[in-house]
Amino acid sequence: MSYKIITISRQFGSGGRTIGRRLADELGIKCYDRQIIDQVAEESGFDREYIKEKGEYVPHGRIGNLMNRWSYYGPTNEERIWQIQSDIILDLADKESCVIVGRCADYLLKDRDDVLKVFLHADMAYRAERIVRLYGETDQKPEKRLTDKDKQRRAYYQIYTDMEYGDARNYHICLNTGAFGEEYCIKLLKDAFLKQ
Amino acid sequence: MSYKIITISRQFGSGGRTIGRRLADELGIKCYDRQIIDQVAEESGFDREYIKEKGEYVPHGRIGNLMNRWSYYGPTNEERIWQIQSDIILDLADKESCVIVGRCADYLLKDRDDVLKVFLHADMAYRAERIVRLYGETDQKPEKRLTDKDKQRRAYYQIYTDMEYGDARNYHICLNTGAFGEEYCIKLLKDAFLKQ
Repeated sequence: MSYKIITISRQFGSGGRTIGRRLADELGIKCYDRQIIDQVAEESGFDREYIKEKGEYVPHGRIGNLMNRWSYYGPTNEERIWQIQSDIILDLADKESCVIVGRCADYLLKDRDDVLKVFLHADMAYRAERIVRLYGETDQKPEKRLTDKDKQRRAYYQIYTDMEYGDARNYHICLNTGAFGEEYCIKLLKDAFLKQ
Repeated sequence: MSYKIITISRQFGSGGRTIGRRLADELGIKCYDRQIIDQVAEESGFDREYIKEKGEYVPHGRIGNLMNRWSYYGPTNEERIWQIQSDIILDLADKESCVIVGRCADYLLKDRDDVLKVFLHADMAYRAERIVRLYGETDQKPEKRLTDKDKQRRAYYQIYTDMEYGDARNYHICLNTGAFGEEYCIKLLKDAFLKQ
């Protein structure tokens, strides 16, 4: 059995998106990340920025709220985005060999045995340096920005998948990108993907 | 910076011990696993089987109990074993390049930057087949044996390290041994260890 799809879950700032794109380039397949947002926007009518947030993060303090609203009032915008996003990802995986970054793709494709599931993370210092270099400074300290994003992404993952974010057992391979560097992670993942 | 030590944390039945030994052989360094138990036995006077259990597992239903006893009555046998075991591991890491399997070595050596921290896991079916093949049948179904060991090892890790067992962020590299197979895991870890 050989792999057809790579899903990359990643901590904010760990370089998962860059690694996903470069890995896809090296393998001669497509990497889906922001393109999924475009497609959700097209199908749902929601704004891109709105989808970008709702499609991967739960706002602070909204968790209980969100769960209650699901139970009593039917699907929220968040749930509609989740549904459209899920259908797009399942469809992509059926159609072509590709890399899919984020959006709980590992969970959505968990019943397929041709998916290499990857989780990328890094220490706070590495990620802090990286987000300031790439996205610039803001009023908030980079450590605070990272902690917030980590919490929101974790909450999102748990609400939608009922699994623990960052648990190694949900993935085939997990790497600390800060320890190994981008080049090495790409080489290692490419080799693992082509292994069988 | 190059690595000197490899710590291997592993799920019961995932083949972590075998991989650790073979990896050490390939690297021409020692692998410490059962030898640590022998040394604890020598230094503490406790029986080997007793140490084997207490040095990595918390018995079912004992967690609250154990915590209370620590607080009110000073060190228990478990804590004495933990202390001796910790000293042995810190000492080993100072003395020589080696592979250390289990016993929260990743946590004990967390302040060193020459330690490659590895977590190995595998799906239930792979582990069940493996433990029956290696250790034989018992009255209990292999799945039940695995679930019990998982719970006990997780509890032990949490009590002593205050970290989440199996959280990818505590390790440099995590692998599903069932997905990749023993040979590939050894090759990959050897390469990662020698990388820098």
